[in-house]
Amino acid sequence: MPEDALVAFMPSGKRGRFPLGTSLLDAARALGVDLDSVCGGRGICGRCQVRPSFGEFAKLGVVSASDHLSLPAHVERAYADRRGLGPDRRLGCSATISGDVVVDVPPESQVHRQLVRKRPDARPVEIDPMIHLHYVEVQEPDMHDPSGDFRRLASALEREWGITDATIELGVLAGLQKALRQGAWKVTAAVRDRREVVAVWPGFREKAYGLAVDVGSTTIAVHLTDLSTGDVVAQSGAMNPQIRFGEDLMSRVSYVMMNPGGDVALTEAVRQAIDAQVGETTGSAGLARADVLEAVLVGNPVMHHLLLGLDPTELGGAPFALALDHGLTMRASDLGLALHPGAKAVTLPCIAGHVGADTAAVILSEGPHLQDEMMLVVDVGTNAEIVLGNRQRLLAASSPTGPAFEGAQISCGQRAAPGAVERVRIDRETLEPRFKVIGADLWSNEPGFAEKTKATGVTGICGSGIIEVLAEMFLAGVLASDGTINGAMAAQSPRVIPDGRTFAYLLHAGSPALLIHQNDVRAIQLAKAALYAGAKLLMDRMGVDAVDRIVLAGAFGSHIDPLYAMTLGMIPDCEPARVSAAGNAAGTGARIALVNRAARAEIAEVVRRVEKVETAIEPMFQAHFVEAMALPHKTAPYPRLRRVMTLPEPMEPAERGGRRRRRQGS
Amino acid sequence: MPEDALVAFMPSGKRGRFPLGTSLLDAARALGVDLDSVCGGRGICGRCQVRPSFGEFAKLGVVSASDHLSLPAHVERAYADRRGLGPDRRLGCSATISGDVVVDVPPESQVHRQLVRKRPDARPVEIDPMIHLHYVEVQEPDMHDPSGDFRRLASALEREWGITDATIELGVLAGLQKALRQGAWKVTAAVRDRREVVAVWPGFREKAYGLAVDVGSTTIAVHLTDLSTGDVVAQSGAMNPQIRFGEDLMSRVSYVMMNPGGDVALTEAVRQAIDAQVGETTGSAGLARADVLEAVLVGNPVMHHLLLGLDPTELGGAPFALALDHGLTMRASDLGLALHPGAKAVTLPCIAGHVGADTAAVILSEGPHLQDEMMLVVDVGTNAEIVLGNRQRLLAASSPTGPAFEGAQISCGQRAAPGAVERVRIDRETLEPRFKVIGADLWSNEPGFAEKTKATGVTGICGSGIIEVLAEMFLAGVLASDGTINGAMAAQSPRVIPDGRTFAYLLHAGSPALLIHQNDVRAIQLAKAALYAGAKLLMDRMGVDAVDRIVLAGAFGSHIDPLYAMTLGMIPDCEPARVSAAGNAAGTGARIALVNRAARAEIAEVVRRVEKVETAIEPMFQAHFVEAMALPHKTAPYPRLRRVMTLPEPMEPAERGGRRRRRQGS
Repeated sequence: MPEDALVAFMPSGKRGRFPLGTSLLDAARALGVDLDSVCGGRGICGRCQVRPSFGEFAKLGVVSASDHLSLPAHVERAYADRRGLGPDRRLGCSATISGDVVVDVPPESQVHRQLVRKRPDARPVEIDPMIHLHYVEVQEPDMHDPSGDFRRLASALEREWGITDATIELGVLAGLQKALRQGAWKVTAAVRDRREVVAVWPGFREKAYGLAVDVGSTTIAVHLTDLSTGDVVAQSGAMNPQIRFGEDLMSRVSYVMMNPGGDVALTEAVRQAIDAQVGETTGSAGLARADVLEAVLVGNPVMHHLLLGLDPTELGGAPFALALDHGLTMRASDLGLALHPGAKAVTLPCIAGHVGADTAAVILSEGPHLQDEMMLVVDVGTNAEIVLGNRQRLLAASSPTGPAFEGAQISCGQRAAPGAVERVRIDRETLEPRFKVIGADLWSNEPGFAEKTKATGVTGICGSGIIEVLAEMFLAGVLASDGTINGAMAAQSPRVIPDGRTFAYLLHAGSPALLIHQNDVRAIQLAKAALYAGAKLLMDRMGVDAVDRIVLAGAFGSHIDPLYAMTLGMIPDCEPARVSAAGNAAGTGARIALVNRAARAEIAEVVRRVEKVETAIEPMFQAHFVEAMALPHKTAPYPRLRRVMTLPEPMEPAERGGRRRRRQGS
Repeated sequence: MPEDALVAFMPSGKRGRFPLGTSLLDAARALGVDLDSVCGGRGICGRCQVRPSFGEFAKLGVVSASDHLSLPAHVERAYADRRGLGPDRRLGCSATISGDVVVDVPPESQVHRQLVRKRPDARPVEIDPMIHLHYVEVQEPDMHDPSGDFRRLASALEREWGITDATIELGVLAGLQKALRQGAWKVTAAVRDRREVVAVWPGFREKAYGLAVDVGSTTIAVHLTDLSTGDVVAQSGAMNPQIRFGEDLMSRVSYVMMNPGGDVALTEAVRQAIDAQVGETTGSAGLARADVLEAVLVGNPVMHHLLLGLDPTELGGAPFALALDHGLTMRASDLGLALHPGAKAVTLPCIAGHVGADTAAVILSEGPHLQDEMMLVVDVGTNAEIVLGNRQRLLAASSPTGPAFEGAQISCGQRAAPGAVERVRIDRETLEPRFKVIGADLWSNEPGFAEKTKATGVTGICGSGIIEVLAEMFLAGVLASDGTINGAMAAQSPRVIPDGRTFAYLLHAGSPALLIHQNDVRAIQLAKAALYAGAKLLMDRMGVDAVDRIVLAGAFGSHIDPLYAMTLGMIPDCEPARVSAAGNAAGTGARIALVNRAARAEIAEVVRRVEKVETAIEPMFQAHFVEAMALPHKTAPYPRLRRVMTLPEPMEPAERGGRRRRRQGS
């Protein structure tokens, strides 16, 4: 009988000869095969499960398979009893080789598995968080070897996991004595960046969590994420309470300018709001705050500065100097977040005074820098952040769209909430509208609509509804190319009614009545012109006339119909199939940075080579802006839109609903 | 005329050829000459002063000197007007070479000058603090290059000082915007470890300060130190308020054991006390708390743990497990110290459960590991920490002397304070005593003594007084070798009086009367036997019968007369000239670690190779202890002490006073 045997791991194909009796986990480690383990081969965690292969693998030089492994020993049977083990599965740490063998490492047993992303076109992201859990058995203290508890923990981490020169902060150290003694010297340590011990729990533990936080001017979104799978286990969205200091960014900066020291109140407000959402998400997931070890936070420059407690005044005027453009790692408690005492908070880098860490996160999520196509990424909020480019070159700008797209500055506008009109169709002949409101899936002209909307009523029009009603008004001839509501139509339809010296369109004659006034059209024209002009400016700078792909990010971008957006001339013309909605791409980017350590270095590098275009000082911006006021504006031929105009239903509502449901997890 | 010239720097002798017009500072930097500068060669700081040499330096290949330098330019004359410049001095940054020249770099212009230590036998220590100040001119923000304030500061540090990849913490970042704008983009940055920006001040600043803190069980000593010179600019000593929870260490640990969570109160107490002393020392030096950028703290293991907020319970029983033996760097604010927001606190490593960071600091100060002689270092407090060794090998132990040496457990004992007896002589014939009290420099039998002590009175006996009175009683025959007060003497002198079943010696018949009771003698016997037995245990382990040098550290060790200590058998016999007092060596060691960054790595390495001897489990300790109870004990021949006994004055009081005055700065 030979003294060693050949072991081959699939799918990597890595193989080598090992002495009989070697565990598959040890063989995998020796070969650099990506096989997970938290408990260090003690049959506790079950992360090293493998599948012995059957049949012949001549090309691998291996003849047979499963009978060339040891029978399940006590520890493996105990694991199977306790937690279950598939009939074709073995624990890699327990199964030892007794002959040549081929084993499959299933995806869930790989350390570096892929983050599950629901959009088929999303960039692949490997799960490789900054923090890993390691179960260790620590040597007990001994009077003859008076080393400290932490030195003995560090020795165990080095001996069992190859982690050298471990460090610890005081806040974590304070709980070490107790954890070691409660766990009878068996503990699980969370180690950050293979160096800093950020948490120690008695006994075995296999899960740690992180937060991806998108601090928007209006909404704060928190995604509580399993660090080992990247799965979002709970999420919440809440109003940014800074709104009471000013609706938009500049009014908040003005508040600080007018009230020296007022930034402290804004900082407190946003930190408390995030912390409350931490309580909410951990609570709904049945977790404790101390289960959370890391938070990645993104936001536009003003949000970023206020979150960090940096005075945003400089961002309120030229030269719009950031205090910090680097990413920053700090204690979570520095931001008032009550997580584990060792938890860290990380902010992603900002790009420029108007283009923040949220845009960095959008880039991370959408990956324009990873592809050859010319991609335009637009994140529409109170400002529109615009990124254009590809592998070779990236440009970024921020365009002052104002809050019209979010329903502000629109007479019957409101935030997206139950009761808000989100879809509109206008009969091209009669000019009679039908619409849908959030919370009801019937058109307003379908039977049962009144019943369905009884609870919420029809309260206003949200951003996507405004886009649709204006586009439909334009397609139906109610709006002229210059944005004027065509008063001549008043003769044809009672829907077009005089409104002082202008006209209005009556969308809904309820209480409240939903009227589209001339000023509402002007507000959207200004906003869409700013957005288009920003994109055009970048295209000019890049030297391109068209883009290959458009990604609409942000809540608004996910809800609008791209065809209507092109109808209004919000975004450059593009093949409709190449326009996609990315949902909360900033939040997704934060989540990518949370679960993939390399992504942090990647975005730091990318951000430094993004060319920033400051719309405020670009003379061409004004020219593009003026041109882009028209519907659709003069410079774009919109050949495809001509076709669209004749289609009865530009897009099935079901498709849009599907897209909306995906937006959190995209 | 040649295009370049030879420049030689003394005392290093480094030299090289440079183009005419090169500044001496640039030449020094190119040659690696140790020439200081904070302002980066802008004629502001004056740290780069040099002295052109005259005469011929044939062996250096340089012929003449001072007229081969440029005449003082505007910036140098302005500096001389503003701050003064010696007639033979030039600013190295301003003076440029116009021919071959030799320049002296005076010690005060060297970056790495020596720490001034008053004891001639003290180890030399180079000033090389962890934190250096760098004056920089930061590029103003520019809309076309939207980098953050910190990136522009980091670029300036790299460009002007070669500091790459600078980092900053949030607390310091918050003040950056203001400092840059107040200083019109000229700021001084304090950079720690050539990496972390820990402070930024507008304009030029040349001083930063640190704290060396010795947290004793009884007393907390704080030394406010100039980081660039190592000079102590203010110091304070205050009672450790933890005393209200227990007089000695073990009673404080017991308090925590009996009152779970009680360690929080002890931690708060000591942190607040240190912080109050920070206020006191900075105030008396005319400085702000924010001028302090670093604190190095030492203490025994229980003090160390309580300071850090670590539960000391484990230190109260075998195996006496430390939570942490490493040195630790943290924010000063983590310890409740209100210094500069970027200030760090550093604790030195502990050696074992009974031998703490204070002993590590004593080793750093006295340097037994740097020499060939066999050195015994004894730091006497409530416990005696004992270190024995040399370059080859170091042993350490802690011996439970109890608080008798500090005046506790002695009927008329008191702490060293005005009114306490500190020196005693007893007439060998009449047994009449004379003594001195702290605060008066007359003997009690000299005219004017009563007047001198009117304010304080004669209130008790401090530690050094107890040693002297017992040694004198022994030398006068009042005490037998076994420590019994010889009742037969009562017949000869009214000073020996019956005291129940034993006798007492009347030192002073005032109010209060100072009587040395038999139990007082026993308390000192127990304490000195513990000290001696600990030293003997280490000598056994080392395999030596005698030591080459003895260093007595700590306040008590500095006040006692080594000859009396040997008379009582407290310490092993040693040539009196080789016994020295080191004063607060723990505080000095902390100060060394404060001003010399290499010392921190040095002590971390030394501490790991110290062999710890646990007196509690060494069978020989008890045997040595019992033997050492005698006066002087049986195993020591004390040949030299025989001579001493015949001397009328073992040591001049003036010498001792001199030694005491030195103790803070030794």
